Amino acid sequence: MQPESLTLTRRFYFCAGHKLSRSDWSEEKNKEIFGLCANPHGHGHNYILKVGVSGPIDPDTGMIINLRKLKKFVEDKIVIDVDHRNLNEDVTWMKDIIPTTENFALKIWERIYQILPQLNEGGKAITLSELVLQETDNNTVTLRA
Amino acid sequence: MQPESLTLTRRFYFCAGHKLSRSDWSEEKNKEIFGLCANPHGHGHNYILKVGVSGPIDPDTGMIINLRKLKKFVEDKIVIDVDHRNLNEDVTWMKDIIPTTENFALKIWERIYQILPQLNEGGKAITLSELVLQETDNNTVTLRA
Amino acid sequence: MQPESLTLTRRFYFCAGHKLSRSDWSEEKNKEIFGLCANPHGHGHNYILKVGVSGPIDPDTGMIINLRKLKKFVEDKIVIDVDHRNLNEDVTWMKDIIPTTENFALKIWERIYQILPQLNEGGKAITLSELVLQETDNNTVTLRA
Amino acid sequence: MQPESLTLTRRFYFCAGHKLSRSDWSEEKNKEIFGLCANPHGHGHNYILKVGVSGPIDPDTGMIINLRKLKKFVEDKIVIDVDHRNLNEDVTWMKDIIPTTENFALKIWERIYQILPQLNEGGKAITLSELVLQETDNNTVTLRA
Amino acid sequence: MQPESLTLTRRFYFCAGHKLSRSDWSEEKNKEIFGLCANPHGHGHNYILKVGVSGPIDPDTGMIINLRKLKKFVEDKIVIDVDHRNLNEDVTWMKDIIPTTENFALKIWERIYQILPQLNEGGKAITLSELVLQETDNNTVTLRA
Amino acid sequence: MQPESLTLTRRFYFCAGHKLSRSDWSEEKNKEIFGLCANPHGHGHNYILKVGVSGPIDPDTGMIINLRKLKKFVEDKIVIDVDHRNLNEDVTWMKDIIPTTENFALKIWERIYQILPQLNEGGKAITLSELVLQETDNNTVTLRA
Repeated sequence: MQPESLTLTRRFYFCAGHKLSRSDWSEEKNKEIFGLCANPHGHGHNYILKVGVSGPIDPDTGMIINLRKLKKFVEDKIVIDVDHRNLNEDVTWMKDIIPTTENFALKIWERIYQILPQLNEGGKAITLSELVLQETDNNTVTLRA
Repeated sequence: MQPESLTLTRRFYFCAGHKLSRSDWSEEKNKEIFGLCANPHGHGHNYILKVGVSGPIDPDTGMIINLRKLKKFVEDKIVIDVDHRNLNEDVTWMKDIIPTTENFALKIWERIYQILPQLNEGGKAITLSELVLQETDNNTVTLRA
Repeated sequence: MQPESLTLTRRFYFCAGHKLSRSDWSEEKNKEIFGLCANPHGHGHNYILKVGVSGPIDPDTGMIINLRKLKKFVEDKIVIDVDHRNLNEDVTWMKDIIPTTENFALKIWERIYQILPQLNEGGKAITLSELVLQETDNNTVTLRA
Repeated sequence: MQPESLTLTRRFYFCAGHKLSRSDWSEEKNKEIFGLCANPHGHGHNYILKVGVSGPIDPDTGMIINLRKLKKFVEDKIVIDVDHRNLNEDVTWMKDIIPTTENFALKIWERIYQILPQLNEGGKAITLSELVLQETDNNTVTLRA
Repeated sequence: MQPESLTLTRRFYFCAGHKLSRSDWSEEKNKEIFGLCANPHGHGHNYILKVGVSGPIDPDTGMIINLRKLKKFVEDKIVIDVDHRNLNEDVTWMKDIIPTTENFALKIWERIYQILPQLNEGGKAITLSELVLQETDNNTVTLRA
Repeated sequence: MQPESLTLTRRFYFCAGHKLSRSDWSEEKNKEIFGLCANPHGHGHNYILKVGVSGPIDPDTGMIINLRKLKKFVEDKIVIDVDHRNLNEDVTWMKDIIPTTENFALKIWERIYQILPQLNEGGKAITLSELVLQETDNNTVTLRA
């Protein structure tokens, strides 16, 4: 009896700054909704990102995907854009998006989902099956395909 | 393109005492089934509780639910009842229930599931989608909707 | 409203050695595909294994399965075979299998799945529902039924 | 060139129950001083204990002390007495002592210090150099020789 | 044989933003010295702060210091000033100081050291003995008295 | 009041294989002393190495040492030699040394101690003050200057 699903997950770690506020809201409204996260000069987090991919195990290598390729892919497409960056100011694909963990995770999902097929080779079909974005030890968002 | 599910999870931490034994069983029977957990004066754990909720992201705030509201809700409805309490003696909603991790997690699930709709506002429908209760580093129960 | 699924998970910890290489490939090919993992004298890891089982909660005990039984079962059937062993040389059920995390996790899954029914008693049906094998803090494989 | 000190540390994990209160104080006084920890039916924790010993490295074995011996020693002399026990009721060497982390750690120190010489052999002098007792992720006591 | 030192440590957790750069240096010089940390819009971290205090155990309470007092003290004097703040812009006692982990830890040390005597009562002398500031899982600064 | 010592610590992570046995001892003797660690085909671990250095804070940069330099230094001098290697076979500076955690940590200490002065510049004197080598979650060696 084989498992229904098999997911290979790699963890990434990066530090970024952000603040949660809307320029079309008053300071009071921003404070009411976003609390301390609305502080005007921003703060930041050590984010943990886990990217899980699924697909058949290649019988030649015993791998779903070469982990070094997956690592390089996520570093090149995601981590390099956000590590030691300010999510409100520096990241083109987060422009005009409130950088909550939900929105941030969803944007990462969309980016990886769209370009992951580049990693498919020899007829293999690797798909993004799970993405976890941890903002603090207490707050996490999980997306599943 | 979009993920099938999106879960926002908040972690809680509390300390509680308990013992596993049935008054209608002999000491030997209790020891045989529950082992050290049946010791008469009880012991305890640092529990970790993760509450995961799902729902649409509010486009105005970028949030499924305001984390501070979720935090206050779970603290008021669950954590305050059990933190630094004895599960066998002090918790009305655990009365006459053997406080295994399975039973304890299920009771927390039922309580949150029932009153979570109170947090819905503006037509949003937030639902409990995942609950994890960790009793020790080695023992965990996971419930999914 | 009851949860759709309830999983009881126990964590195990063991240390093993392995290398990733194929004797029918050249050293260059092995290095290209497996990188540092192909180093001829092998290396090793502190593996973390999480075994999740599902089934009805026994109303007499409040348990899906007695954790001590599950612990002894996985230790006797899996951990004793691999702890402080070399996966390429010492483990009969890994013979001729490239010990990637994917292959290793799948083999553990098959072994547990096959013999877990031995633990069923009194008409209960416990099934393997989730298995997580962590090779390093960065690399993990998750199998779900 | 050589380090001033070399400490070999083994970690232990156990669960225990306790409460902090004095029978010669009123309930109010106990509550004022000990807060939730004074709740009458007790609570408990997953304690982490780290025992660090120092001494010369035996040139024959490359070890300060055989870790299996140290493990058995601490399990036999400490862990077995407190694991799944109630510190107020079940542990003779904690009798009449308020089981704060400070007092508990100090008692463990005294017990280990006194009987550790039993492990010395062949003229080697192993001494207890550091003891860490963690009550929760937030509260820890560290003793150093 | 009593231990030479006994330290009670409480852990705190906060999120802050910062950047490392000097206005009297060119962008190139800042980049050369501070690397990604010099990015103009800043980034941030989930800091972990551990405050360790020493002193005699009060025989009446079994405590070096009441942990709730220590918690409130550090939260009021340190955490409230920096949590969800920007260390370069918002924190008066970090004004004109490059917020490296070294400088930040030292400033926290000085602040706590100076006002900790306020917590002494009844002739007890509690002193700051150890302070650990973790910026990321990889980078930590430890100060000892 | 300034702290007596200030240590900046960077964490490293690597995987290596090893076995504990002496060729001049019988298999029985090796098994008796080294237990499972003597298994002939070896096993391995995910080691965590923490390197702590002390020295004055450079007032120009706010740093004891540039963390990127320290990182590159330890990676070039230590990690590259041992990551995904077999400590008994592949590491010249571990030749003929039983790779216990004690011996391994001491060898790393000696190597770093000897060549760390290369990192001193502008009259600064950085010294190795603490080294922690963790073999498993349960076993750690700590060296202090």
